[in-house]
Amino acid sequence: MEELDILHRALGSRLVTEAAEIAKYARDSSRELVAGAAQAVVLAESTADVSAALSWANAAKVPVSVRGAGTGLAGGAVAYEGGIIISLERMNRILSLDVPNRLAVVEPGVITAELDAAAHQHGLFFPPDPASARTSTVGGNIATNAGGLRCVSHGVTSDAVAALEVVLADGRIMHTGARTRKNVVGFDLTSLLVGSEGTLGVITAATVRLKPVAPGTPRTFRAGFPTLESAGDAVTAIVNGAAQPEVLELMDALSIEIVESYFPSGLVVPEGAMLVGQTVGVDAQAKAEAITRTCLDAGANEVEISESDSLLEARRLSNPALNARGLKLSCDVGVPIAALSEVFRGIGEISRQHGLRVSTVAHAGDGNLHSAVEALDTPDGILAADAVLDDITRLALTLGGTISSEHGIGSVKRHELPWQLDAVTLDVQRAIKEALDPHGILTPDRAI
Amino acid sequence: MEELDILHRALGSRLVTEAAEIAKYARDSSRELVAGAAQAVVLAESTADVSAALSWANAAKVPVSVRGAGTGLAGGAVAYEGGIIISLERMNRILSLDVPNRLAVVEPGVITAELDAAAHQHGLFFPPDPASARTSTVGGNIATNAGGLRCVSHGVTSDAVAALEVVLADGRIMHTGARTRKNVVGFDLTSLLVGSEGTLGVITAATVRLKPVAPGTPRTFRAGFPTLESAGDAVTAIVNGAAQPEVLELMDALSIEIVESYFPSGLVVPEGAMLVGQTVGVDAQAKAEAITRTCLDAGANEVEISESDSLLEARRLSNPALNARGLKLSCDVGVPIAALSEVFRGIGEISRQHGLRVSTVAHAGDGNLHSAVEALDTPDGILAADAVLDDITRLALTLGGTISSEHGIGSVKRHELPWQLDAVTLDVQRAIKEALDPHGILTPDRAI
Ligand SMILES: Cc1cc2nc3c(=O)[nH]c(=O)nc-3n(C[C@H](O)[C@H](O)[C@H](O)COP(=O)(O)OP(=O)(O)OC[C@H]3O[C@@H](n4cnc5c(N)ncnc54)[C@H](O)[C@@H]3O)c2cc1C
Ligand SMILES: Cc1cc2nc3c(=O)[nH]c(=O)nc-3n(C[C@H](O)[C@H](O)[C@H](O)COP(=O)(O)OP(=O)(O)OC[C@H]3O[C@@H](n4cnc5c(N)ncnc54)[C@H](O)[C@@H]3O)c2cc1C
Repeated sequence: MEELDILHRALGSRLVTEAAEIAKYARDSSRELVAGAAQAVVLAESTADVSAALSWANAAKVPVSVRGAGTGLAGGAVAYEGGIIISLERMNRILSLDVPNRLAVVEPGVITAELDAAAHQHGLFFPPDPASARTSTVGGNIATNAGGLRCVSHGVTSDAVAALEVVLADGRIMHTGARTRKNVVGFDLTSLLVGSEGTLGVITAATVRLKPVAPGTPRTFRAGFPTLESAGDAVTAIVNGAAQPEVLELMDALSIEIVESYFPSGLVVPEGAMLVGQTVGVDAQAKAEAITRTCLDAGANEVEISESDSLLEARRLSNPALNARGLKLSCDVGVPIAALSEVFRGIGEISRQHGLRVSTVAHAGDGNLHSAVEALDTPDGILAADAVLDDITRLALTLGGTISSEHGIGSVKRHELPWQLDAVTLDVQRAIKEALDPHGILTPDRAI
Repeated sequence: MEELDILHRALGSRLVTEAAEIAKYARDSSRELVAGAAQAVVLAESTADVSAALSWANAAKVPVSVRGAGTGLAGGAVAYEGGIIISLERMNRILSLDVPNRLAVVEPGVITAELDAAAHQHGLFFPPDPASARTSTVGGNIATNAGGLRCVSHGVTSDAVAALEVVLADGRIMHTGARTRKNVVGFDLTSLLVGSEGTLGVITAATVRLKPVAPGTPRTFRAGFPTLESAGDAVTAIVNGAAQPEVLELMDALSIEIVESYFPSGLVVPEGAMLVGQTVGVDAQAKAEAITRTCLDAGANEVEISESDSLLEARRLSNPALNARGLKLSCDVGVPIAALSEVFRGIGEISRQHGLRVSTVAHAGDGNLHSAVEALDTPDGILAADAVLDDITRLALTLGGTISSEHGIGSVKRHELPWQLDAVTLDVQRAIKEALDPHGILTPDRAI
């Protein structure tokens, strides 16, 4: 406690020690439980605050968790017993918006959708758009290398990050990257920090790349398929076709049923699965027509094109609906595009073998699946569901896939790391962590 | 010498010790001189060969230089006194080409243009296209994070790399990345290796992303401007316009004069500068028209659109022509797009102040300038030219730019690193290098 006084002198009221306040910052949106109580939360208002907190924690060897909005699904921001929490929510200013160079400089706590809205006022947009965009922070998006609906056309968060200001574990401040389109000066520390899930440094400012909004009215399209496999084949064909979608998502029949039961909107439940997506540009209608034709060729039994965005809303509501159903047990596996129909077939088999129902929503155009298992909320039920998810994850790996496409490893998926990475690669990850955080105070024992 | 026998037993005739052979692998295409003679060159034919060579060098503490085709312009592949050279030129097989997933797996010694040609047979292409594509290797492109003519539309080499096989300094083999579009499993070691210029590991295989060739006949466009500044303004306007070019290059009057004097093609020398570029897709003609209209609005006095690619050839010949002229003293600075006209104005002033002529060619759409100084090939002449390049580099930095956009740091630009990077960032680079190569045997004292 005496030790904490030192930090209190540096931070004043930005250091909060009331248990009730601390509890608000102790969890994220995963099912990871908090192991114990943190000592304090730092409501940082500046890079200097973050630096002071880390210098102190590094000297005192106190574990630190870092938190944006806590929408993370991997347990990365969960508090440590006896640790401190650094919250970035108050560092929420857009520092500059440079239209001719299409760059914005932001503090890490800016809400994703707010940056996007600010960019829209200048005919630009911020490409990363996780389904959580209305609540997640840009710093959290960068720290997780978040995906989202527009990845299929605009890439992941790392494609949108030009430069970072980072406070290292010992409180020193580092600057990575540049404001130019190309930059090959030293190692690419920007990309190293993107997706590092709070383990290598705290991002206190980011220079991000914006893109111009396409002209014309976007079109939303929908196609119903008799089977998941045929929908998977359609995705492979669309991605390899001439007309490229801005968004290409998939929901299987069960996930649509679940969304409809919580947020009824009159959506037709297909036999097997639905593809839903968007096209943009002056030729949006022509592209939507080409894509729905491809769907029909791949076996769709009905298609629809609309100028309203409401079809996509069902996809955005799938996470809240699954949560309402208690279905927090889901995965984030990815496969190469051409393996989609094979992975769907395999998931069907796994579901039958285990006798448990699986619902799948997917960022289909990226080959990224969120399959959720319907299980009882009992220790046995959870164990049974986890066994299903493990099988799905191993299946994705045998198809050349990944254990996590966008949510990250955090604490939840750490046991799966050796399934994908060889011992040498794991060793190199640890060596880099030790080089940057020798006392292991920053988000210890997570992500790698 | 006895020590080398151990390696000889492992590698047989793939270890070459004849001085004349070694000399062929001792230099790159920069003006960096070889400090002394290497002991041997390893003509690696497999990952195992590379691993054997590095295990040996790590144990014997012998410095290693790594070489693709030696087209590098930063002195990164130059041999060390008493060192060994690992050449990847024999590891030149395309291991697989997966059309539906648009992925190729290649050995590092594959020539860039050969991979591109192989992809074209399936309607695909390999986006990285440095002007050296007919001689450079894919491994060299990855190790330098090479740019090229298509960057403005398709990004840099790192955007095209999905996964790597890497031999570490101690001979261990690491695998980074995945075959999926998105992957957030541990730190992004792929991006860390891309652009690491042979200092963190030897790339022995790469999984790269291909793209579909756009339908229709490409159009080439050209615009002549009265001043460099007005051409710079046009670039900013084009990049922010609705019609996007596939390629957007700039040559000033002096550089065109030099190319014309070595490779006469009847190219009109404009008063100030020429923009030359390409558009692709079914609407290539419409896009070229929109872009040339933007040029006229920005002050161009004449424009041309053609179905022949020959206009771009002048740009591709600029490097050989400058070399023929002895103009090996050039820079690789970059600035944010909107600062182009300002940097051109500044370069004019610097040229006048020093009383030395400067010619500039640029990957204009990326804000990347290669300015070359006309100087005498004497020690004094080179000193005077370097002073001009230093001033241009510092100017680029004051405009938010970078000291190197695509060629890398190698040994040639190492003294400039502290101009751009702060002490903490330099320190972190060194810490990572030490973590991965504790004995400092792999391309020591370069790049960082
Ligand atoms: C309804 C819902 C939908 C979602 N949809 C998607 C989706 O489509 N795509 C997707 O990728 N994810 C999605 N997610 C997951 C989550 O929103 C993302 O991971 C998001 O990027 C996390 O942002 P955050 O600000 O909430 O970060 P947190 O949850 O607060 O933190 C996430 C991780 O980042 C670290 N971190 C946060 N800020 C910083 C910082 N400034 N510096 C260093 N480290 C930091 C934390 O330590 C932690 O490890 C969804 C989540 C929900 C609840
Ligand atoms: C005429 C001409 C035009 C050029 N145009 C461009 C251009 O438009 N854009 C551009 O970016 N560059 C350009 N360059 C520079 C050069 O071609 C690139 O840097 C290219 O990527 C180097 O490839 P290389 O195979 O020749 O590599 P090398 O010159 O052999 O090596 C370059 C660096 O990469 C390292 N390296 C090579 N292979 C490996 C490997 N397998 N594993 C680890 N490290 C490795 C070396 O150690 C060295 O540090 C040009 C050069 C010339 C001569």
